[in-house]
Amino acid sequence: VSTPLTVWCDARFEQSVRDHIREKAAPHQIVWVHPAPQTSGSFNNAQAVQPGADKSPVPVDMSEADVAFGQPNPQAVSEAAQKKRLRLVHITSAGYTRYDTDEFKQAVQGASIAFCNSSHVYDEPCAQHALAFMLALARELPAALDTQRGNRDWPSAKRRNASYLLNGQSVVMLGYGAIGVRLTELLAPFGMQIVAVRRNPTGSEGVETVTESQLARVLQQADHVMNLLPEADATRGFMTAERFAQMKAGARFYNIGRGATVDQPALREALLSGHVASAYLDVTDPEPLPADHFLWTTPNCYITPHTAGGHWGEQLRLADHFLRNLHALASNKPLVDQVF
Amino acid sequence: VSTPLTVWCDARFEQSVRDHIREKAAPHQIVWVHPAPQTSGSFNNAQAVQPGADKSPVPVDMSEADVAFGQPNPQAVSEAAQKKRLRLVHITSAGYTRYDTDEFKQAVQGASIAFCNSSHVYDEPCAQHALAFMLALARELPAALDTQRGNRDWPSAKRRNASYLLNGQSVVMLGYGAIGVRLTELLAPFGMQIVAVRRNPTGSEGVETVTESQLARVLQQADHVMNLLPEADATRGFMTAERFAQMKAGARFYNIGRGATVDQPALREALLSGHVASAYLDVTDPEPLPADHFLWTTPNCYITPHTAGGHWGEQLRLADHFLRNLHALASNKPLVDQVF
Repeated sequence: VSTPLTVWCDARFEQSVRDHIREKAAPHQIVWVHPAPQTSGSFNNAQAVQPGADKSPVPVDMSEADVAFGQPNPQAVSEAAQKKRLRLVHITSAGYTRYDTDEFKQAVQGASIAFCNSSHVYDEPCAQHALAFMLALARELPAALDTQRGNRDWPSAKRRNASYLLNGQSVVMLGYGAIGVRLTELLAPFGMQIVAVRRNPTGSEGVETVTESQLARVLQQADHVMNLLPEADATRGFMTAERFAQMKAGARFYNIGRGATVDQPALREALLSGHVASAYLDVTDPEPLPADHFLWTTPNCYITPHTAGGHWGEQLRLADHFLRNLHALASNKPLVDQVF
Repeated sequence: VSTPLTVWCDARFEQSVRDHIREKAAPHQIVWVHPAPQTSGSFNNAQAVQPGADKSPVPVDMSEADVAFGQPNPQAVSEAAQKKRLRLVHITSAGYTRYDTDEFKQAVQGASIAFCNSSHVYDEPCAQHALAFMLALARELPAALDTQRGNRDWPSAKRRNASYLLNGQSVVMLGYGAIGVRLTELLAPFGMQIVAVRRNPTGSEGVETVTESQLARVLQQADHVMNLLPEADATRGFMTAERFAQMKAGARFYNIGRGATVDQPALREALLSGHVASAYLDVTDPEPLPADHFLWTTPNCYITPHTAGGHWGEQLRLADHFLRNLHALASNKPLVDQVF
């Protein structure tokens, strides 16, 4: 790698974050594809920039850069890869569904391009969101807010009896990447029984880990089923009606992964019957979830609008995470969060 | 202490819990003041039995028992104490405001009666409730539920930008008993800065501990103010308008202690001005909070109906906690949760 490097970036960071990146990236050069937004609060880390969707002149072709940072179009990356200059593609999200194709992998691996995501930016907020879901249900917070917005009575005994301690209860995590690892750390003081379900257990998870062949057994035993699955061919529709039926009666279901990994009508049925006591979902299919979608009004189903990864300072944390990899690349050191 | 002991108990435990206590208390004898309730779900651990309020015949006078367990009337305890038989009063709550008088203390201490509460039954659910409050606000869960019950739009970017990580933030705990100690353990993985405010620091708190003389300084620095104060002469109205004004702009306030320790109109003003960003209260003054009380509709003020200590198995855990002290008393071993 010859330095200084040229970085193509299509992330719509605020000006202060751009200034930070420019300063900390030196001697490497950042080329911004888009002007800085005039309003704050509109940042969307996973916003895909469609070819032709942005009318501003593109000042540099990706093929003339050493590094692409943001949400580059997979087809554009594949084409730029042929010019053999690009060394690193670093995306501003943890999810990488649209890059997870054989065609894309062959293009970047054939050109020796490293592909990294931002999973260690989002593990912390996502794990805190997951624990917030678990504790909110355990402490009956949504029911209390419904009462506050409703008749404002004081059903203290009823709510106390419906509340429960997490201690000694069991949680099954579907998928066990950075979020699952961090959630396990946050849950340590609660003394829960944790089981991870992975395609390829490494033996170094630090918690009991099983493959899908053991799924029915572990679903039957779990008080909490935490879905952390990304969207991929192998995970689409993973939580079927049959698997909801395998869950322990009265258990809780959460989704911090992707909406398409769940058979949503089956989840609704499981909630209507009471077999699944409640669900807290950060992701749905589709998103935004239309106002007339059945999930909004399914009893004991609570929804946050894909906010699990969000947090004050998100742009700065994305920037610093990228800068670490930029400097690692320049000095031939190992990259973090390399997916392939 | 001569055994077997006779235990006077006015707790309205379910029959299954009574059976458990009878079995595990042997050879000691339990005398139930009230018949077992016919319906479950109505248990109230702190229900004070007013003299004459219960029409059932009292089968034993407290003065003829060695132990009183439940929520005995303080005046009745003081009178029974004169007969010099009572050795232990063990109450089914963590709060003990109505026993916290000089007159009561003199009566029981003068008769060498130990007074114990159930704080180690309630530290765990209360600490989990406190963390649920902190995470619910950090992850914007109440706002999301309001949207779900409202126009069902999908303000993802807005909510993400309003969410925040607890890591590195600071929390001041007002009062630092069993709940604060346990909350500190639950918060350990978050790497927060924790400061405890106590009347009499022991030096063994394991966190930075200050007295009230440092309150203004620590309030100014805290992102989170967690009120865990019991109600007593020294704590009534503790959170004044001045102290809310001393809080850092945009900080959060929580109350898991007692409602009377807060100047509620001052809290409302602090929330209306935005100086306090939000509040999550489990306790209010009065309780139940009347449906037309201003706190219900104060912006960014969320309320649970005094449920922080509640949990499945509460009666059984109260029973086991008492049984440990009963057997400790019989064998002259140290009591747990002895208040005085």
